[in-house]
Amino acid sequence: MSKFDEYISRLNHLNAKSLYQNDFFLTWEKTDDELAAIWTIADALRDLRERNISTRVFDSGLGISLFRDNSTRTRFSFASACNLLGLEVQDLDEGKSQIAHGETVRETANMISFMADVIGIRDDMYIGKGNAYMHEVAEAVQRGHLDGVLEQRPTLVNLQCDIDHPTQCMADALHIIHQFGGVENLKGKKLAMTWAYSPSYGKPLSVPQGVIGLMTRLGMEVVLAHPEGYEVMPEVEEVAKANAARCGGSYRRTNSMADAFRDADIVYPKSWAPFAAMEKRTDLYGKGDSEGIKALEKELLAQNAGHKDWACTEEMMRLTKGGKALYLHCLPADITGVSCESGEVDASVFDRYRDPLYKEASFKPYVIAAMILAERFADPAALLRKIEARGLQRVYC
Amino acid sequence: MSKFDEYISRLNHLNAKSLYQNDFFLTWEKTDDELAAIWTIADALRDLRERNISTRVFDSGLGISLFRDNSTRTRFSFASACNLLGLEVQDLDEGKSQIAHGETVRETANMISFMADVIGIRDDMYIGKGNAYMHEVAEAVQRGHLDGVLEQRPTLVNLQCDIDHPTQCMADALHIIHQFGGVENLKGKKLAMTWAYSPSYGKPLSVPQGVIGLMTRLGMEVVLAHPEGYEVMPEVEEVAKANAARCGGSYRRTNSMADAFRDADIVYPKSWAPFAAMEKRTDLYGKGDSEGIKALEKELLAQNAGHKDWACTEEMMRLTKGGKALYLHCLPADITGVSCESGEVDASVFDRYRDPLYKEASFKPYVIAAMILAERFADPAALLRKIEARGLQRVYC
Amino acid sequence: MSKFDEYISRLNHLNAKSLYQNDFFLTWEKTDDELAAIWTIADALRDLRERNISTRVFDSGLGISLFRDNSTRTRFSFASACNLLGLEVQDLDEGKSQIAHGETVRETANMISFMADVIGIRDDMYIGKGNAYMHEVAEAVQRGHLDGVLEQRPTLVNLQCDIDHPTQCMADALHIIHQFGGVENLKGKKLAMTWAYSPSYGKPLSVPQGVIGLMTRLGMEVVLAHPEGYEVMPEVEEVAKANAARCGGSYRRTNSMADAFRDADIVYPKSWAPFAAMEKRTDLYGKGDSEGIKALEKELLAQNAGHKDWACTEEMMRLTKGGKALYLHCLPADITGVSCESGEVDASVFDRYRDPLYKEASFKPYVIAAMILAERFADPAALLRKIEARGLQRVYC
Repeated sequence: MSKFDEYISRLNHLNAKSLYQNDFFLTWEKTDDELAAIWTIADALRDLRERNISTRVFDSGLGISLFRDNSTRTRFSFASACNLLGLEVQDLDEGKSQIAHGETVRETANMISFMADVIGIRDDMYIGKGNAYMHEVAEAVQRGHLDGVLEQRPTLVNLQCDIDHPTQCMADALHIIHQFGGVENLKGKKLAMTWAYSPSYGKPLSVPQGVIGLMTRLGMEVVLAHPEGYEVMPEVEEVAKANAARCGGSYRRTNSMADAFRDADIVYPKSWAPFAAMEKRTDLYGKGDSEGIKALEKELLAQNAGHKDWACTEEMMRLTKGGKALYLHCLPADITGVSCESGEVDASVFDRYRDPLYKEASFKPYVIAAMILAERFADPAALLRKIEARGLQRVYC
Repeated sequence: MSKFDEYISRLNHLNAKSLYQNDFFLTWEKTDDELAAIWTIADALRDLRERNISTRVFDSGLGISLFRDNSTRTRFSFASACNLLGLEVQDLDEGKSQIAHGETVRETANMISFMADVIGIRDDMYIGKGNAYMHEVAEAVQRGHLDGVLEQRPTLVNLQCDIDHPTQCMADALHIIHQFGGVENLKGKKLAMTWAYSPSYGKPLSVPQGVIGLMTRLGMEVVLAHPEGYEVMPEVEEVAKANAARCGGSYRRTNSMADAFRDADIVYPKSWAPFAAMEKRTDLYGKGDSEGIKALEKELLAQNAGHKDWACTEEMMRLTKGGKALYLHCLPADITGVSCESGEVDASVFDRYRDPLYKEASFKPYVIAAMILAERFADPAALLRKIEARGLQRVYC
Repeated sequence: MSKFDEYISRLNHLNAKSLYQNDFFLTWEKTDDELAAIWTIADALRDLRERNISTRVFDSGLGISLFRDNSTRTRFSFASACNLLGLEVQDLDEGKSQIAHGETVRETANMISFMADVIGIRDDMYIGKGNAYMHEVAEAVQRGHLDGVLEQRPTLVNLQCDIDHPTQCMADALHIIHQFGGVENLKGKKLAMTWAYSPSYGKPLSVPQGVIGLMTRLGMEVVLAHPEGYEVMPEVEEVAKANAARCGGSYRRTNSMADAFRDADIVYPKSWAPFAAMEKRTDLYGKGDSEGIKALEKELLAQNAGHKDWACTEEMMRLTKGGKALYLHCLPADITGVSCESGEVDASVFDRYRDPLYKEASFKPYVIAAMILAERFADPAALLRKIEARGLQRVYC
């Protein structure tokens, strides 16, 4: 049985029907089967591409991207995913657009979607805003489709919001599934999601939240570690606890990085801003209080600077299982002595894991493509079979 | 007989040959048959897409866009149209380009067109400039093609100039054709193209001009209403009068919104700047007189503010035929209490017509695609037949 | 024997195997056979397109562009080339990207390349930087491919660096090959690459360097002319001398434009900045010395202004072979009385050569496409045969 046949067989045993005509906001809104389906489709798409089989399933159609925050990896991953399936990316640059003050989200969403099959949005800067905005867009196009305005119903892919970064975390998870030889081998493994010092400020919480909200579903022992004052959203911690209880793993929080790293199989040290500070910042922006924002920034940088010892050093790595825990990062990392004087990780640690880190990132285009495929096609397994049988070459030869 | 067969049959009875290898600047430069052909091709393309039949007729080729003014709807419509036919959009961002001071339009036009099949331009800010610029570009590529510089002759589509907004007005017209169940049912209907108050300033005249220049060809009773001082280009009014005389409708102008709305079947209330003021602004820009421009802006806003009663209120709507005239707008509208304190239309009116308004907008991608098709292919009817027979799926399944 | 058959036959007699899985940085790093192969593939691709045969060889895949300097011609040429082969252009806009301070080139290069088949870079502003950066990118993706991070190995195309402008010069060369009826007819022809006055400052040296580094390989008598102080990189002059010695032509330098123009068959008058000044500027930028840069700019403009007599006037043209030398330029030219008061060329000279100049430019998309094809496919001749046999139409009809 080929790898591809295994993927199809696995897909056929999963109940993932309700991904169809739906959106992808948060991993914990999806069933285990649905997540497994996404990973399996991603693996199948990669297998096809590696065998030079084109997976173009759209002969025309747009993939619309809206980035309200800078992005390189996710921007190119979304563009790659769209292109892999035959969609042309059209970026909505709000600066160049005639979006009237007060023009409703509902209107804009419909106006750009007449020939759109997917909309990908990054909106991660303000607590309580990004995810809500995505829902507004998705509801607008859903209504537009029902009302006969839109011939097709574009699916929404969350390219990072204030709550979750599902394309990142799903790629992270697929990476460790492959590194450990199967999702079943992750059971009982210890994963340390830890805060780490960075000289920058205000990094989103969506990665740590996404990681504890997802990895607790794989039967892992998940530990969240951060200095006091760097709490994440309490609702997401509740999700993590419930997941752990349901899936046979565990979730706990600690204020000691060493505690989290001790005997860990996987470590994910990364900086983020305190949830309370991000909420405060959102309020200040809302009020247009730029003096307040400057003061807050200063305060946060000072707060960060008190925790320079939270770094993924060689010494810290020696605490992990056999000193050889798998190091994860969503990139770019703040590397001590490379991108900053003092940062999240030692250069020697980063260098040792560069290869797996880049592979981790390589799953993101496939995860996004899998989300689009699962949400736009009623029977992905049958479709993938047909794609293989069609045997169209990606590169003509 | 299927809808599609009807479209083909209709096309075969129209004399629209001279669209081929030509450009689309102003609707009144085209014959009735030519406009009918554009609408019919648009309908046929939509029918094919709704039946999941790919209308990709270019296996490679670029669609070049140049937006000298902000745009969302038209930008996405042009991108959608190009994509629908297989062309990849390449935006000419004059800011990022190495267009030398004094580089001739002729040169730039040729340099970007080696593999271009269509060029779409929005240039609507200055009276006497936009349309002229488009002609310069079209002539340049025409000469380039004749001189053997360009293998193909890219067609030009006017995405809004200082005189007309043909892709908008042709979409508006196709919308009312469908709403009234056929172009023949528009005969004798009253259409009110009226000015409306907006807190912004300097909106182009191309929509009201385009509307009176086009709708007078459908046998309609067209009334242009605006406060004194908001006159449109006199040449376009002459076009409207001549059209009405030739086509069995009427055209008149009034300074009373109520007069225009009374018993109207269709209303199109929308703000625009006075032609004389736009001319003055063009002069001031030419002289680089920024103080003068500021003063003019102030003056115009004050002038606007004297006409806040020009709004599409519920009360005004009750004057229309059965109180149920079809409300049109090119969007985005300035909605009272939503996008501004006091604007072009009451929120309750806008809400009631939201669905048809969005459908109105949905015709634009198809109208643009139809223009490209008619201008790049000698026999659109035969081509559409072949596309249907080819039966390539837009979405593979 | 058709033109196309001749191209294939010629290709089959060239040893150009090592272009495959390689990059294109500088013309003098390639063998004569390799350059001949690029030109022949370019001609074959053009012949296919002219016969309406699609040359789409990628069913999906990205072509990534990175422009660190403004560009119109090269940007559209790269986009056209990618599109011609089936790749979708994705521009890396460093302003919109989340490229961390200190993020390594190695990382960025891999992160954008998961589905990239080609990367095109313009980086021509700083001596010693652009070409080096391109090598860093190419080595990064090469390692990424070997390490299993990248499924395919994207090829790098130099879209202008500090040393060479190979896509321009290869297009220039293909143009004169066609104008003179074959490369063999260029032997013994005199080509004058001369400096010319321009009111702007700091134009790259890559064109004059690229021209003397390439045209000396065609058995031509190449003369580089410039005022004292406008020397080009000495290493490139060494390349030109060695080429001339090997290929039976000549290379010399003069400080007299008339000397260079006398009896020339081809003239290429164009402004550039002195190499020494460009080096100084690079240092000043490195130090962030903006005062020093302003002073240097002033100094350079004054230096330029001392050489307004270096212009391609009618009088100067009369010195050339029969007064009819072929005039070349990479465009845009500074045309006296058109784009500036006093510039590189008389308007009447430019006008007379407009047609051949635009044709010269028309080769660039094909040259770039040929580079991509030769570097991504092991046997371009066989591939081109298959493309012809496949007979897919570019424009469906």
